[in-house]
Amino acid sequence: MNPFQYYNPTMLIFGPGKLSLLAKQAETMGEKVLLVYGGGSIKTHGVYERVIQALQKSGKQVFELSGVEPNPRVSTARKGIELCRNHQIDWVLAVGGGSVIDCAKAIAVGCTIDADVWDLVRSKVTARSALPLGVVLTLAATGSEMNPYSVITNWETNEKIGWGSPLAIPKFSILDPELTYTLPHDQTVYGVVDIMSHVLEQYFHHQEHTAITDGFCETILRSVIEYAPLLKDDPNNEDSRSTIMHAGTVALNGITSMGTIGDWATHNLEHAVSAIFDIPHGGGLAILFPVWIRYALDRGTAPKKVAQLGINVFGLKSTDFKDELELGYATIIALEKFWRSLGAPATLSDYQITLDDAILESLADKTLIRGPFGRFQKLDRANIIEIYRRAQ
Amino acid sequence: MNPFQYYNPTMLIFGPGKLSLLAKQAETMGEKVLLVYGGGSIKTHGVYERVIQALQKSGKQVFELSGVEPNPRVSTARKGIELCRNHQIDWVLAVGGGSVIDCAKAIAVGCTIDADVWDLVRSKVTARSALPLGVVLTLAATGSEMNPYSVITNWETNEKIGWGSPLAIPKFSILDPELTYTLPHDQTVYGVVDIMSHVLEQYFHHQEHTAITDGFCETILRSVIEYAPLLKDDPNNEDSRSTIMHAGTVALNGITSMGTIGDWATHNLEHAVSAIFDIPHGGGLAILFPVWIRYALDRGTAPKKVAQLGINVFGLKSTDFKDELELGYATIIALEKFWRSLGAPATLSDYQITLDDAILESLADKTLIRGPFGRFQKLDRANIIEIYRRAQ
Repeated sequence: MNPFQYYNPTMLIFGPGKLSLLAKQAETMGEKVLLVYGGGSIKTHGVYERVIQALQKSGKQVFELSGVEPNPRVSTARKGIELCRNHQIDWVLAVGGGSVIDCAKAIAVGCTIDADVWDLVRSKVTARSALPLGVVLTLAATGSEMNPYSVITNWETNEKIGWGSPLAIPKFSILDPELTYTLPHDQTVYGVVDIMSHVLEQYFHHQEHTAITDGFCETILRSVIEYAPLLKDDPNNEDSRSTIMHAGTVALNGITSMGTIGDWATHNLEHAVSAIFDIPHGGGLAILFPVWIRYALDRGTAPKKVAQLGINVFGLKSTDFKDELELGYATIIALEKFWRSLGAPATLSDYQITLDDAILESLADKTLIRGPFGRFQKLDRANIIEIYRRAQ
Repeated sequence: MNPFQYYNPTMLIFGPGKLSLLAKQAETMGEKVLLVYGGGSIKTHGVYERVIQALQKSGKQVFELSGVEPNPRVSTARKGIELCRNHQIDWVLAVGGGSVIDCAKAIAVGCTIDADVWDLVRSKVTARSALPLGVVLTLAATGSEMNPYSVITNWETNEKIGWGSPLAIPKFSILDPELTYTLPHDQTVYGVVDIMSHVLEQYFHHQEHTAITDGFCETILRSVIEYAPLLKDDPNNEDSRSTIMHAGTVALNGITSMGTIGDWATHNLEHAVSAIFDIPHGGGLAILFPVWIRYALDRGTAPKKVAQLGINVFGLKSTDFKDELELGYATIIALEKFWRSLGAPATLSDYQITLDDAILESLADKTLIRGPFGRFQKLDRANIIEIYRRAQ
């Protein structure tokens, strides 16, 4: 177990119907609010109207930034920052999923610095203050509602970069599972894959004596595996929507990495793909994660840990296999089978993507911007290209 | 799964040797600090000296309140409050276990109210502000280092009462497992029982679809059962001390009750006993918890949940038992066996306590101060007396 620091002051307000508490929560915030949202689905489903009513009820002056993209763009964050500066905004309210929250974080922190927000994302400058951020979550996936992280894409440079700041941790997040009932099935599935991938990125580490943190990871994975399939035929299932939303938040709020250092190579690999092809993050992860684990196992990396996943999460029995390696490969098949059963993609060709040599090199360049990566399984250029080839 | 709110802004600083970060942390706090500690064991083991050096290094003016009792007294909290008022103290630093922290919370919150601190504990007044509180933990047990709760005893009225306030949540807590190496074995055991009891109080609930929260509870219990026995022959075992300290904090920081409402009857029953006989809280819990579960099972209360504990925590196999009830009773025996293997007491007579009718009535009176209690298993006066009788 490694030393660690943990600090997460987000006030979570969780439960079906809890959007009704927004007005009360808004009363504790400043007068001028920038409302940040996406492509308009919150208007279709009445969420926008309820949010506006709550903000008006609590006497707020509302400014709006709409149209935040699924892979949120630095250009959109710049627009939000301009609005904040022009109108002396007091706080930011993100209503949406991870993309909207990530963009709102870039705005809330970025509007306080004397530099372009892309320099903040690239870690060229550090912020000392931020506007407070509130969240109404409409999609269970990224965990951004209770952590300091954000991922921003720059289409001028085809870069997708993750950054973080304690200043970006939301002050409050309203987690109302009812708001996810109307999600299209593919988005639900991408969210589920994203949640499980976050846990897996943290679960694959080389620290010893991490019984509590590993057990938390396994619990979240088992719970998602139990409850996600119910949504295929019953998207309004309250128990399942609640469990998935709960899972998404605790999957990346710090409690699953207490004392451990996760890998995160697959996220880097995926960000490069969606920075070029603009595919859904969850779809990219569903394709790349099994390839990555198999690649690590092929190199003999910690079959014991992969086998532990198989036994504790997928219910495999060690007595049914010759050794840990064989059990490890069976674990990967179980993971692939589960994601396919939900309807997730399995290869890049499912998105009509083919990778020629030039694209492979370009992908590798992007992933290597900060040097070789992967802590569970170190990856160099040749390894990276091999993984992408296998993902086709 | 029930709706819930979660807010826990404590900065945790965890790891062997991390007491060295106290000076840096103290720099973020005010100049005048009230150092609160217990019976002097921190002086024997050099912790006191290191704390004083850190506070001096960061330029603090140190005032002291020593001698906080194992069941901390309201009279001691009153002394601390007087010190805070007389010297315009800026913040409070608790160095010790749960008792010291609980007393420090009563001081930090109590010194801001226009009433006696006992009125705060009895919920007769509500505080609006508090001095900030820092913690250096020297005993893994109560979880007080990362929650709003405190238990204070009044020997004038023989009452031991739990109270809480968001204002009492520590601003930072340094969790250095090395500080627990010198703990006497009995105190280690009482801590382990207390940690497991906190989880069990929360685990026994009637909410459905609580896979994540139940799994977190089971994870903590399994981890403690795996690592606590190592300390019998090897009290300096870093992996075990770290795991137990980690367990103690996450056992009562809110993540094990997301969406559930625990029982907490056994804590009430124990507080009454130690308010009269001044026995260690962990010892009282080791005696009363198995009696309470057996009492609930005898009444047919949720054998399924007790069986779930047996299967997921104690590794019992459902196929080895006739039904859930039989498996439930075997689970209680497994729990008793584990606590006895550590050296915990099993009956009140282990503390030379015998209960005559007058004492039984007096105990029942104390527990019933706020009316009948227990959410998993409702208890009235007759039930309470029966449980105490069985505990002899």
